[in-house]
Amino acid sequence: MAGETVITVIGNLTEDPELRYTPSGAAVAKFRIASTPRTFDRESGQWKDGEPLFLTCSVWRNYAENVAESLSRGMRVIIQGRLKMRSFETREGEKRTVYELDVEEVGPALRFATAKIQKSSGGGGGGARFGGGAATSQPEDPWASAAPASQSAGKGGFDEDPPF
Amino acid sequence: MAGETVITVIGNLTEDPELRYTPSGAAVAKFRIASTPRTFDRESGQWKDGEPLFLTCSVWRNYAENVAESLSRGMRVIIQGRLKMRSFETREGEKRTVYELDVEEVGPALRFATAKIQKSSGGGGGGARFGGGAATSQPEDPWASAAPASQSAGKGGFDEDPPF
Amino acid sequence: MAGETVITVIGNLTEDPELRYTPSGAAVAKFRIASTPRTFDRESGQWKDGEPLFLTCSVWRNYAENVAESLSRGMRVIIQGRLKMRSFETREGEKRTVYELDVEEVGPALRFATAKIQKSSGGGGGGARFGGGAATSQPEDPWASAAPASQSAGKGGFDEDPPF
Amino acid sequence: MAGETVITVIGNLTEDPELRYTPSGAAVAKFRIASTPRTFDRESGQWKDGEPLFLTCSVWRNYAENVAESLSRGMRVIIQGRLKMRSFETREGEKRTVYELDVEEVGPALRFATAKIQKSSGGGGGGARFGGGAATSQPEDPWASAAPASQSAGKGGFDEDPPF
Repeated sequence: MAGETVITVIGNLTEDPELRYTPSGAAVAKFRIASTPRTFDRESGQWKDGEPLFLTCSVWRNYAENVAESLSRGMRVIIQGRLKMRSFETREGEKRTVYELDVEEVGPALRFATAKIQKSSGGGGGGARFGGGAATSQPEDPWASAAPASQSAGKGGFDEDPPF
Repeated sequence: MAGETVITVIGNLTEDPELRYTPSGAAVAKFRIASTPRTFDRESGQWKDGEPLFLTCSVWRNYAENVAESLSRGMRVIIQGRLKMRSFETREGEKRTVYELDVEEVGPALRFATAKIQKSSGGGGGGARFGGGAATSQPEDPWASAAPASQSAGKGGFDEDPPF
Repeated sequence: MAGETVITVIGNLTEDPELRYTPSGAAVAKFRIASTPRTFDRESGQWKDGEPLFLTCSVWRNYAENVAESLSRGMRVIIQGRLKMRSFETREGEKRTVYELDVEEVGPALRFATAKIQKSSGGGGGGARFGGGAATSQPEDPWASAAPASQSAGKGGFDEDPPF
Repeated sequence: MAGETVITVIGNLTEDPELRYTPSGAAVAKFRIASTPRTFDRESGQWKDGEPLFLTCSVWRNYAENVAESLSRGMRVIIQGRLKMRSFETREGEKRTVYELDVEEVGPALRFATAKIQKSSGGGGGGARFGGGAATSQPEDPWASAAPASQSAGKGGFDEDPPF
């Protein structure tokens, strides 16, 4: 893939990551982050928060499992990913657009935290072959296949559009 | 500060971070990373490593202590920082230039690892007020003050130029 | 401002930039770009377009006038800006969210074009003092004040919500 | 190529770009930029320049010709490129390292300038096929082949090490 918009975002998880599996068994984790800029107010001599930027992020395979095991709500993270736009129709037939982040790399920011880091076991073999950004391209879309299933189920976490 | 060159680098630590303190007691950690791109060779059907990019990184205060406690040699990290150029003279009077990274945010990449993350205790109070990139600006240069000290000591980790 | 999400996007203008002035006389230009990634299809041996990413961009003051004078529909540009999220309500009372780019720097990409570049006259004096990203912060919101005006006019380019 | 360190730099050309051709006829342009951050000094109420960051940049093929025709010394540009490290030996046998930027996209920043943009003629056909960052990978190294040639010539622009 060439010409993608790769960006870096620093933010805090608004919820715990949600881990799912595609029918073929590939893991995918989704989570949402809020990135809040701050302005220094010269009059009060204090920093004050600006408008937060929210982004939904998805990460695949062993990386997804590592994320789900390591990160939780409120944690500050660093993410590098591809900014994507996705259009869909609501049930009322209206067109909507959402911006999302396909995660290439993610980890906890150590600004206010320490981390005990451990090599992941599962992905040790095959995973070790994926060293670059290209490794996160996905061969199938679990949300596409998951949507009918969850709709037929009538309820559940993923029967809405978009799933996250 | 405006107009700085903020970049994101994914790489592996070539050594454990080195932690020091300025005379006034501010912590600073330095470490070196190698970022290795990879090319897909269509003939062999395999990825092969390209030329690695090495960068020396420095991080300050509580953040430095968290880094020193959490990261070690070989770990894959994500770093956002300001690319800086520093010129100096060798003992032979030659001019040299090094490129370095002033770390704004750093953390372990979870591609091949999991992490147990814990709020850092020391920096909880004051540190929590620094949420943005501006927080890492340093009021004094420990290397400047450290250099004479270590030179008079005759040996030690920082008697070379540049220290890292 | 600290902790903002500064990103770089390469894309093509989908329309000519639209130039407006705030009641106090500050210029602002808005334009939309499409950034289209491409995938190499090994079977056909050809590149094919992926899903485009659309982003609305705004730029202020002398910079806005330079953009309006220089750029037009279809041109390929490089943009560095702050990714922002803006929430608003439709006339039907529904909440919507748009992502926008506050331009810090923009210019034509020279991949398929040449450019005759000329120092801008108007902003020569005051403008020259703004060298960094901080210079583009805006003291007032022309769209806020412009919206009622254009709504009373009953028609025109800015009577919709969001204006761009 | 995956896992490269792609960065964006805003800076001013320190000299006019230098255009060369490889033995096989591929154009390559090199130029050097200075990127100068600025700090706001609260006491004086003024901005003052920080230490500039210098980077040597190279760009290939039709893009190189467009750059050489459009850009000149002093101009402010936006560059997206891959940060590379290159090691070499001086004539005295000392090892040196330089950091360089392989340009993916470059153009004049319109902050203080306007531009008359024109589609480039030469690269219209073949060039149009190169839409993404992957297009700038070079099949041969003109500096490698150029070096012996210019050394035998005894003088000229490229008989030094490194050429830029």
